[in-house]
Amino acid sequence: MPVLRSIRERFAAQQPLAGLSVGACLHVTAETANLVRALAAGGARIAICGANPLSTQDDVADALRDIADVYAAHAESFDDFARNINAVLDGRPRVTLDDGADLLQALHLRGLPDDFIGATEETTTGLLRLRELDPATPVLAVNEANTERVFNDHYGTGQSTLDGILRATNLLLAGKTVVVIGYGFTGKGVAVRARGDGANVVICEVDPQRALEARMEGFEVLPALAAASRGDVFITVTGVPQVLGRAHFERMKDGAVLANAGHFDVELDLPALRLLASERHAVLPLVDEYVLADGRRLHLLASGRVVNLAAGQGHPAEIMDISFALQALAVEHLALHGAALPPGVQPVPQAIDDEVARLKLASLGVEIDSLTDSQLRYLSRFE
Amino acid sequence: MPVLRSIRERFAAQQPLAGLSVGACLHVTAETANLVRALAAGGARIAICGANPLSTQDDVADALRDIADVYAAHAESFDDFARNINAVLDGRPRVTLDDGADLLQALHLRGLPDDFIGATEETTTGLLRLRELDPATPVLAVNEANTERVFNDHYGTGQSTLDGILRATNLLLAGKTVVVIGYGFTGKGVAVRARGDGANVVICEVDPQRALEARMEGFEVLPALAAASRGDVFITVTGVPQVLGRAHFERMKDGAVLANAGHFDVELDLPALRLLASERHAVLPLVDEYVLADGRRLHLLASGRVVNLAAGQGHPAEIMDISFALQALAVEHLALHGAALPPGVQPVPQAIDDEVARLKLASLGVEIDSLTDSQLRYLSRFE
Amino acid sequence: MPVLRSIRERFAAQQPLAGLSVGACLHVTAETANLVRALAAGGARIAICGANPLSTQDDVADALRDIADVYAAHAESFDDFARNINAVLDGRPRVTLDDGADLLQALHLRGLPDDFIGATEETTTGLLRLRELDPATPVLAVNEANTERVFNDHYGTGQSTLDGILRATNLLLAGKTVVVIGYGFTGKGVAVRARGDGANVVICEVDPQRALEARMEGFEVLPALAAASRGDVFITVTGVPQVLGRAHFERMKDGAVLANAGHFDVELDLPALRLLASERHAVLPLVDEYVLADGRRLHLLASGRVVNLAAGQGHPAEIMDISFALQALAVEHLALHGAALPPGVQPVPQAIDDEVARLKLASLGVEIDSLTDSQLRYLSRFE
Amino acid sequence: MPVLRSIRERFAAQQPLAGLSVGACLHVTAETANLVRALAAGGARIAICGANPLSTQDDVADALRDIADVYAAHAESFDDFARNINAVLDGRPRVTLDDGADLLQALHLRGLPDDFIGATEETTTGLLRLRELDPATPVLAVNEANTERVFNDHYGTGQSTLDGILRATNLLLAGKTVVVIGYGFTGKGVAVRARGDGANVVICEVDPQRALEARMEGFEVLPALAAASRGDVFITVTGVPQVLGRAHFERMKDGAVLANAGHFDVELDLPALRLLASERHAVLPLVDEYVLADGRRLHLLASGRVVNLAAGQGHPAEIMDISFALQALAVEHLALHGAALPPGVQPVPQAIDDEVARLKLASLGVEIDSLTDSQLRYLSRFE
Repeated sequence: MPVLRSIRERFAAQQPLAGLSVGACLHVTAETANLVRALAAGGARIAICGANPLSTQDDVADALRDIADVYAAHAESFDDFARNINAVLDGRPRVTLDDGADLLQALHLRGLPDDFIGATEETTTGLLRLRELDPATPVLAVNEANTERVFNDHYGTGQSTLDGILRATNLLLAGKTVVVIGYGFTGKGVAVRARGDGANVVICEVDPQRALEARMEGFEVLPALAAASRGDVFITVTGVPQVLGRAHFERMKDGAVLANAGHFDVELDLPALRLLASERHAVLPLVDEYVLADGRRLHLLASGRVVNLAAGQGHPAEIMDISFALQALAVEHLALHGAALPPGVQPVPQAIDDEVARLKLASLGVEIDSLTDSQLRYLSRFE
Repeated sequence: MPVLRSIRERFAAQQPLAGLSVGACLHVTAETANLVRALAAGGARIAICGANPLSTQDDVADALRDIADVYAAHAESFDDFARNINAVLDGRPRVTLDDGADLLQALHLRGLPDDFIGATEETTTGLLRLRELDPATPVLAVNEANTERVFNDHYGTGQSTLDGILRATNLLLAGKTVVVIGYGFTGKGVAVRARGDGANVVICEVDPQRALEARMEGFEVLPALAAASRGDVFITVTGVPQVLGRAHFERMKDGAVLANAGHFDVELDLPALRLLASERHAVLPLVDEYVLADGRRLHLLASGRVVNLAAGQGHPAEIMDISFALQALAVEHLALHGAALPPGVQPVPQAIDDEVARLKLASLGVEIDSLTDSQLRYLSRFE
Repeated sequence: MPVLRSIRERFAAQQPLAGLSVGACLHVTAETANLVRALAAGGARIAICGANPLSTQDDVADALRDIADVYAAHAESFDDFARNINAVLDGRPRVTLDDGADLLQALHLRGLPDDFIGATEETTTGLLRLRELDPATPVLAVNEANTERVFNDHYGTGQSTLDGILRATNLLLAGKTVVVIGYGFTGKGVAVRARGDGANVVICEVDPQRALEARMEGFEVLPALAAASRGDVFITVTGVPQVLGRAHFERMKDGAVLANAGHFDVELDLPALRLLASERHAVLPLVDEYVLADGRRLHLLASGRVVNLAAGQGHPAEIMDISFALQALAVEHLALHGAALPPGVQPVPQAIDDEVARLKLASLGVEIDSLTDSQLRYLSRFE
Repeated sequence: MPVLRSIRERFAAQQPLAGLSVGACLHVTAETANLVRALAAGGARIAICGANPLSTQDDVADALRDIADVYAAHAESFDDFARNINAVLDGRPRVTLDDGADLLQALHLRGLPDDFIGATEETTTGLLRLRELDPATPVLAVNEANTERVFNDHYGTGQSTLDGILRATNLLLAGKTVVVIGYGFTGKGVAVRARGDGANVVICEVDPQRALEARMEGFEVLPALAAASRGDVFITVTGVPQVLGRAHFERMKDGAVLANAGHFDVELDLPALRLLASERHAVLPLVDEYVLADGRRLHLLASGRVVNLAAGQGHPAEIMDISFALQALAVEHLALHGAALPPGVQPVPQAIDDEVARLKLASLGVEIDSLTDSQLRYLSRFE
């Protein structure tokens, strides 16, 4: 995690968080530990509980007790989970970090203290809850930062989706027709990589701007029913339920592979698939074969769950490096400028997003130029 | 121009502009004539003058007199130009179309009539002037629509820049190191195409987000001074002056080619190049060879002017098809909903942008799906 | 294995091997069983022993006893191995299949029977031995067929090498500089895929034709010492020992990853690496970290063994489908035309190679045209 | 022409052709002049006539008279052409260079002198004639060298074909379906570039190996009739007549573009196209519109002639640099080793092909490694 490391080194030298009380409700894992260490290096006092009892790694929790108050145990009960949230809040945090809005929501119920500065949130679900809640304090939407979306969705999921499919099936992508359903950030990442691996890629997309972009990038664009009879591999990545259903399954080729890289397990209409199949059996650990009445076989990966998590190793650590770097700089921003921020969910400032990009470039050994003063003056004429 | 044609056919059937008085100050060319015909088919009464006396095609002007009042002659004097603008305004247009803001600015000086609905503007320069002017009427910024930017900058200039370079030099792109300076919409288009043609592409970019994106797409990213000694071909596309200057020229390889695809002729520091050269002579119609003191030769294309216009045929007609389709739908939008719009420069509505994308897909023979009602209901839960 | 399946169906109908005695010394695995079944379906009587005691799957061996004489047991002793070869030869095979030349070499020592028709060989090592032996019978070099080389080396290893690296490290390829050393069939496959995954790819190659081709495909081409300081990931695929040694290791960046996809474990100079390192420890199951005196860390994958086999699942089954299809058709060719063939190692006939390509296309659902008679007549004028 | 220049410099220093009498029948153009100068610099005495009266540039012919006997005039009569060939032969050349076999054929009719060493031939047509003639002297087939084929067919024609189409039509490749018929060296070059420009590329190919390769590279592969209704642009590059005929034209979309990059003007069945069309008119200088009975319009480029020559500038000079470098080294090889060569058409030695690749790399500033002695020893074990 070179980006977070460089931030930690600067934090240690500059102490921007000196004395700041920070409360965190995050997955207590080895990666998160690096974030906690960076914040501690910057001078913060930290109390942390686990965002999900099943993700807590007890050895990590133990190791963190040197630098933070840790209220988390693997597989803790729901009562313990609630008690732990309260324990963190009892530490009177002035900044909170959330991975699902639990901490800030609980704090809201208690009533926001006058000296509370603000919060960060890492998940889409958490942001949905917070936007409904409309909090009276600034909330920085970390996962909507550009670096986060580009790395997480486009490059991270783009790579790990195909990786998950290869691990589950050991098929050869070259020569296959891969149908990517959904051409958003993630869909583009999957499509470009599949093409780079020698697949013939077909795109299905309902948004006309995205469909047109796919076409202008040289992909064939088809309605899903027309694509159904063409594909060897289908990858859904739309955020929409039931994008492939009975009508599509009925047209698919014998041996077609079905993978979901999108939203929970709703993008493939699994009840329809089960109704259609005369039999079903596992042919590989993560591959279920559904046999249709006429003998054709469809291969469902990972029971329709998100294939890069279920069949692969999830995101590379360097993806989390970006997320946590944004978190660390967001906390610093709240510490230094939080009082001046309006309440409500808001983007991470562009300067932080740019700083993370700059640090990531540095970690890759890439140098870039800056504009000269005379160039800046020239451009300022147009503003 | 299939997109504009399909709009014209609908206009003819629906008459959305029936009786509307429209004033236009545009380049009077064969392509523009198609726009005028579409507006006339929709029921508009049109008066048009030329945006630039040199671009007026007299035969087109003549041919348009059947359906519009035309006040334009090739190479007309500045006095005639002014008189013609006034003639258009005398027709009491309620909607204006501008290609440089001349018409709306003149109308503003006269005072906006009460029944004036709004305007469209096609150029960046025009928008700069109008944003300073802060007009008391809605102005739709056509060239900031997504379809326009994607087609015009990314695909149009992406292709035509390399095309212009090939026409000027007849060099082989495969095996060359091509340095693209600037990785915006246009720079990306140029970079991807150069790579597709077998060039080794190096990117220089001052914006860290863009630089990081270039790197994540597999390009080598270098400061311009480091790239200077690597490149066989340099293409500037930044919008910033003097991105290549004396220090860069001094490091370049014998035979390096210099092309500008960006902003006027300021991106290459031509005075510095002339000072550095001991001699200079044309080696091909659009190629000037500058001989440095040590004998190295640098080849400047099209005197540093925008290479796709100076050395190529400019944009394909289908690029203008998109622009004019946006113009036509923008006029319709003003006619139908202009009264409800706030004053000031504003984006073309998303629905119009999407409609142009949809019509372009149709013209390419591409069908796409729509979301079902149940999918729309599902998504509405998150809004 | 759809290609082999279609051959088996034809064999069952046409019985081209009716009564033919075939001896095989192959890896006794589930995939090989499909080959044996295809030959048996064609009417052959088959005796088989294992090419490597460790690869023998006992359950497969058992299952094959219905249709073949099987002389193979997992982890059998060397004496048993020799006894089993002799048992196969005692069956008086008229055609042999080898995966390392053991069977044909043993038969040669006994003396080739008069009615012996010919042999096939699947490995490079086996062909080396047989070319020295200069056998008095035709030997079809299956692994030199074009379909075999393209699928096995280019597409198979191209994909599985990167797959192995991802599984071992979970790194993100996008944004990394990947140095591919060797631009033969396999190196090209690796390079193109790495580029498709967003890596910046640098090629090192000693052959000027290949180096030039790499350059004309847009890759940067560097001497290995110059590439050493650039790479984040190094992949050797040359067939040559010690292509990366002390001088290269000394220049590498902290965190560089070393993977071999080439020849045994000789391409990386591991003794030099061990001498250079002050310490070494496993950081992941297949990743050893070597710490240099100045603190830089190099990460060696799979102890320098072939990374796609050691860290991945090896080739997809469809790669073996091609190999075994070639084997089956080669046996048929020997049965039908072997008497007319000259002795010695020789290519698989073009017609067989083409037939496998045709069957593979059919399995992918791809139809192609044939030349018309008049086109054939036209072309014959040039022959 | 940097490769030829470096050869000329070495020739000037080493005089490998000192006193050798060379006869040449080549296109007398500025490019050829560089070859003549290189041979003269190496010590050769040269007599040259023009391979085609229409290609002779009189100013070049004049300029060459200082260093060669020149027998060529633009638009000379056939009688003069014959007289000029004889004049060259009267100079008693010991080596000949041909661009269509005229010189060597004439010499054969006279009877090969005892001290004649050998010849080079640059064209496919010339080689066809010479292979029938079966000459009693070595003939080096320059245009079958690997560097020549790769540069000329793959990179040269690959780029210039699309360039020719863009110049003739000014269409936008992105978003178009481009059907490439023929996936040989040239077809691959066209297909890869079209894809790099954003086209959706469909391949038609009768050879199963090539068709399979196209498919494994991610292209859709279709029979020509199926492709006929899909394409926006059709490019034939097969070497076979009438690959697109009436049945294909009848299915094409309105506006389809037809271009030939292959063999003369026979690949498109133009008589069938004319019969099918109810009218035909030129819409651009190199674009003829054929209107079918139902109103659909097909656009034929350059009357079906080879589009990169007819509509573009032909090959870049650096393509000819490779050809002439091979010619120069082939002449040197004949001078030094010709006596040891067998008679008949034969490949240019691999060492010459490699030397040209090496010089081309050097001209691009690319350095490569050599194998070490110990690596060579290791490899020799396998030979």
